[in-house]
Amino acid sequence: MIVELISVGTELLMGNIVNTNAAYLSEKLAALGLSVFYETTVGDNPQRLYETIKTAAKRSDIVILTGGLGPTQDDITKEMAAKVCGVSLVEDEHTRKRIQRFFETRRVVNITENNWKQALKPEGALVIDNHNGSAPGLILDYQKEKKLILMPGPPQELKAMFEGYVYDYLHQLQPSIIYSEMVKIHGLGESFVATKAADLIENLTNPTVAPYAKTGEVHLRVSAQAKSRAIAKELVKPIVNDIKNRFGMNVYTTNESETLEENIVALLKNRKLTLATSESCTGGLLAGRIINVAGVSDVFKEGFITYTNAAKNHRIHVSQASLDQYGAVSEQVAKEMAVGTAKVCNSDVALSVTGIAGPDGGTKEKPVGLVYVGCFVNGKTVVKEFHFNGNRNKIRENTVVYALGLLRTCILKEQS
Amino acid sequence: MIVELISVGTELLMGNIVNTNAAYLSEKLAALGLSVFYETTVGDNPQRLYETIKTAAKRSDIVILTGGLGPTQDDITKEMAAKVCGVSLVEDEHTRKRIQRFFETRRVVNITENNWKQALKPEGALVIDNHNGSAPGLILDYQKEKKLILMPGPPQELKAMFEGYVYDYLHQLQPSIIYSEMVKIHGLGESFVATKAADLIENLTNPTVAPYAKTGEVHLRVSAQAKSRAIAKELVKPIVNDIKNRFGMNVYTTNESETLEENIVALLKNRKLTLATSESCTGGLLAGRIINVAGVSDVFKEGFITYTNAAKNHRIHVSQASLDQYGAVSEQVAKEMAVGTAKVCNSDVALSVTGIAGPDGGTKEKPVGLVYVGCFVNGKTVVKEFHFNGNRNKIRENTVVYALGLLRTCILKEQS
Repeated sequence: MIVELISVGTELLMGNIVNTNAAYLSEKLAALGLSVFYETTVGDNPQRLYETIKTAAKRSDIVILTGGLGPTQDDITKEMAAKVCGVSLVEDEHTRKRIQRFFETRRVVNITENNWKQALKPEGALVIDNHNGSAPGLILDYQKEKKLILMPGPPQELKAMFEGYVYDYLHQLQPSIIYSEMVKIHGLGESFVATKAADLIENLTNPTVAPYAKTGEVHLRVSAQAKSRAIAKELVKPIVNDIKNRFGMNVYTTNESETLEENIVALLKNRKLTLATSESCTGGLLAGRIINVAGVSDVFKEGFITYTNAAKNHRIHVSQASLDQYGAVSEQVAKEMAVGTAKVCNSDVALSVTGIAGPDGGTKEKPVGLVYVGCFVNGKTVVKEFHFNGNRNKIRENTVVYALGLLRTCILKEQS
Repeated sequence: MIVELISVGTELLMGNIVNTNAAYLSEKLAALGLSVFYETTVGDNPQRLYETIKTAAKRSDIVILTGGLGPTQDDITKEMAAKVCGVSLVEDEHTRKRIQRFFETRRVVNITENNWKQALKPEGALVIDNHNGSAPGLILDYQKEKKLILMPGPPQELKAMFEGYVYDYLHQLQPSIIYSEMVKIHGLGESFVATKAADLIENLTNPTVAPYAKTGEVHLRVSAQAKSRAIAKELVKPIVNDIKNRFGMNVYTTNESETLEENIVALLKNRKLTLATSESCTGGLLAGRIINVAGVSDVFKEGFITYTNAAKNHRIHVSQASLDQYGAVSEQVAKEMAVGTAKVCNSDVALSVTGIAGPDGGTKEKPVGLVYVGCFVNGKTVVKEFHFNGNRNKIRENTVVYALGLLRTCILKEQS
């Protein structure tokens, strides 16, 4: 079954935003065993959008369109899709009510008239509720067994809708079963992982192994195609075990939907450990990432953003002598931050970060990208030195992931 | 002049990497005043690539292709471009010598045979030297005044080649100059802004106004085309002023590259105000966003992540009575958090956040999405109640932007 993606939006063609939706959907579709032959981005222009949908619908079985479903005049995806399918737009009572509720819960009193445009659907189309926004998703029949699937452009709305509905919908259309596991590896570089697993990535055909580089992580997807889920699962198993052996403790999960922070929060809960954090260069992003996890309050006590030396000294008792002698970005200060944080918060575990995120502040001895992460677990403290590349944001984002990785391995080692 | 982009590579269709080249080129081309009507991604498949190039060459003036110029069998962009233009491949002596030198300076002794494939060029094509890799860029005539421009896929090679040669090449082909400003608006919804500026967005032709929705922000791009930059600038000016009048204090900049946090940090610096933060549901993301700004240490003192009631009480002196009587998510607690944070940190300004990000913890009186933001400026405290929709992440991300917006307006009002 051939799938084709169309991203709609002049803002994509103007380069204002990077098209992450296309990469997201491509990866998910590959995992479903679906072949994507084309991805097209087209602006909010009726004629060009119409032609693009028409061409795609002719040559592909499933056309997935994202964007252009909003309330403004520019949003014409639904209109053009209906035109290609030769149907007109009708009001969908269910969606009208849902939009009414959507705004009521947000206490929006004056719903502007253009919002009701979103309650229109192409006649006969299947409506997919949007739980994160006002515009619904839609599935249209172009021909028998040829479908157009329309989803909203904002990534959060798109992802929730794809995972909540469209994934299953596409899965049911598939003749053979695809089963895959995602082996998630933290703290190792992309080329290191690709080299160490080169034989698997290059030579295997069923299952296949495909690498995906993420910030501070590499994910290896192992997918098999078979008549039944059980057979596919059996094909995947030995390869997953092989990869686990190659990358050891750096493999944190084989569950596609589990994030590193979820893995760590579960680990802390399991072992009844409480956590506190103190951050300098990451400035809250580390705690912010941990607090992504719902129900984290069982384990997370509190966090300090000690951007200044005074804060490091006052809040978490880093000694002025160490700050003077070693500087704020040093192994000693990272250690005192972790120990002090655990003590002040009376937590079992404490994680500290101090580093130079740049662009200024680097020296020959302490260049931009130098980061120390301290990890205190039940009285024992480990400090690790990192050197990251890239701009301020990239350094901070990498720091968060490597700090989480250190936290995980420290708990596993300390408590094993 | 109509431009079209084609990204070549099966790895893009599998979602293994995000296509940043397309966004990079789109932005550069927009700045050159060139209209990009389509971007297509296609795999390393001869027939599909041929068809894609053919279609693009027919409907556009300039087709820019990236990727598929390397030494392997999979790399077929040059071959298909030559076929579309009806020319054959011939060896380019200059490129053969450059590739020889390229490998010699990298001390590669055995240059594998397939590398010489890169010295072939479509007959009559213009060669662009690649100073960062082996594959050269190429410019082919499809028809008189219709060009195919081929560039390598690795972003570093692409960017250097574009900035070193292709930018100037395209600039010379352009008859008019384009100038644009981006009016950035915080704290108002997309459809509200679109409605209030509908006449500008829908009716204007030169300059044009185009809306871009971001998390918690809407950006309006005002672009004019003219014979000179000065004339284009004059065309843009009255429309930018009109938009500023319509959205008042919610407009924070007209500078494309300035972010909301940069704007606020500059405002604090300007007025010599220091800032501290305390966060519950955002868990550090608010401070993390502020600390995106390099050199923020002049104004940012420190931050507290007071996820628990105990932390709110111990660190920033929220009274136990208020926590008991009103609950952690309440106007009163947000107020005490802001006041307490300013007092503990001795800062001029303090920003506090407490809310229910979900998915659990909501009640009928206090539903998921309810957030209070407190802002203390020089002794005066304002608390604002928000109701956000969406999942945990969306609520937290919106909270960060609206909290920054409140901070900005409080400073402007307090200090005006």
